[in-house]
Amino acid sequence: MTHMTSTGRPIQVGIDDLKRELRVQGATVSARLGQAVRGLATRNLHALDEVAIGDGDINARQMGIDDRAFKLLALQQPVAIDLRVIVAAIKVNADLERIGDLAVNVAEASRRYIDHGAISDEDVLPRMAEVAEMMLHWAIDAFVTGNVGLAQSVLERDDTLDSLRDQAFRRLAATMAKAPTYVPSALELMLLTRHLERIGDHATNIAEDVFFVVAGEDVRHNAHGLSASQ
Amino acid sequence: MTHMTSTGRPIQVGIDDLKRELRVQGATVSARLGQAVRGLATRNLHALDEVAIGDGDINARQMGIDDRAFKLLALQQPVAIDLRVIVAAIKVNADLERIGDLAVNVAEASRRYIDHGAISDEDVLPRMAEVAEMMLHWAIDAFVTGNVGLAQSVLERDDTLDSLRDQAFRRLAATMAKAPTYVPSALELMLLTRHLERIGDHATNIAEDVFFVVAGEDVRHNAHGLSASQ
Repeated sequence: MTHMTSTGRPIQVGIDDLKRELRVQGATVSARLGQAVRGLATRNLHALDEVAIGDGDINARQMGIDDRAFKLLALQQPVAIDLRVIVAAIKVNADLERIGDLAVNVAEASRRYIDHGAISDEDVLPRMAEVAEMMLHWAIDAFVTGNVGLAQSVLERDDTLDSLRDQAFRRLAATMAKAPTYVPSALELMLLTRHLERIGDHATNIAEDVFFVVAGEDVRHNAHGLSASQ
Repeated sequence: MTHMTSTGRPIQVGIDDLKRELRVQGATVSARLGQAVRGLATRNLHALDEVAIGDGDINARQMGIDDRAFKLLALQQPVAIDLRVIVAAIKVNADLERIGDLAVNVAEASRRYIDHGAISDEDVLPRMAEVAEMMLHWAIDAFVTGNVGLAQSVLERDDTLDSLRDQAFRRLAATMAKAPTYVPSALELMLLTRHLERIGDHATNIAEDVFFVVAGEDVRHNAHGLSASQ
């Protein structure tokens, strides 16, 4: 049975629209991160510059998603899981926008790194980039489908990412101490590992929101007898 | 005239409670950041360790604030500025919790820096710390009082902070290239400037929420004739 609201439109339709838009935003942000990472690997300066100038569509879509979510909150007066998923969507929306900003940072640091001159330590990046991209992909999927198991995988991968960053940090610090001329390049690589780590942090935020949306349901459902709309 | 809800409790009372709790959380987080910054300056290892072990109260208060906000959304069905301020409170709450985490990071990096041995480049930090602390203080104040002018000052200070970080970065990179034995200490200082920069970013997020809460009111008020509760 579908819960109808005063507007005559099932709230689930609004929530599905919201999730669909978040998926598009996630795919856009993910594509830009991928372009920056591949741009560095293939020395494609044009691809890097394209990411570095930013993407107005991301900001416009972010505002559209917020607007949609606030209208649902104001006009449909959701409760229980519907309420949590809409508020979480606003937070996920902010995380995706920041990941978009970090993709710009990745492109800019890659550009400077190439200008300074490549060093062999660059091989610390591909595995980190792969994990960060996977976490982002899984986090969006987990949010849209409410998949707690997938959200759990994102949290586990964050430990992998942090450990890769620590390894990279130690190796790059050793390089800087041994070969001072490599300092500018090594610092940009270090910065790149930090950007990838922060992308992982935002994916982790999204995964934590999945737990909040789903686990909150069980608790509050039992406590207040509120029922979800599907 | 006060807008009453079906629970018989003016929604403004709930919003005031929420803001009061956020102010307490902000003061707690700010005190811990201050303790970390002063702990480094005065070489007070005990103070640094105290911050580094974290503060369970911050996490408990964060959950309490979220819970309060969700109850307001579910039970009082707010619209217009009330709705925006409650959703923004949930975002501000998350920003404050992350600033708390960054204060832990500042304490940890300070501890390692002291272990590696102090270097004269340390003087890049106090001004950055001062700006970051001021931004945090102003951002919370601007949110609680809805002061757009103060929020604007936070945004302006973020440029100052970024420019101080860039100066620090160049100077520390030069030190590392010239004096390889200073690399470990210089890297921790660089990390500290990043943590302070990110604290500024979170303060900026809070300031942007003030604009959203207040400016959104004008736009939607005119468009839909919804009226705020005060």
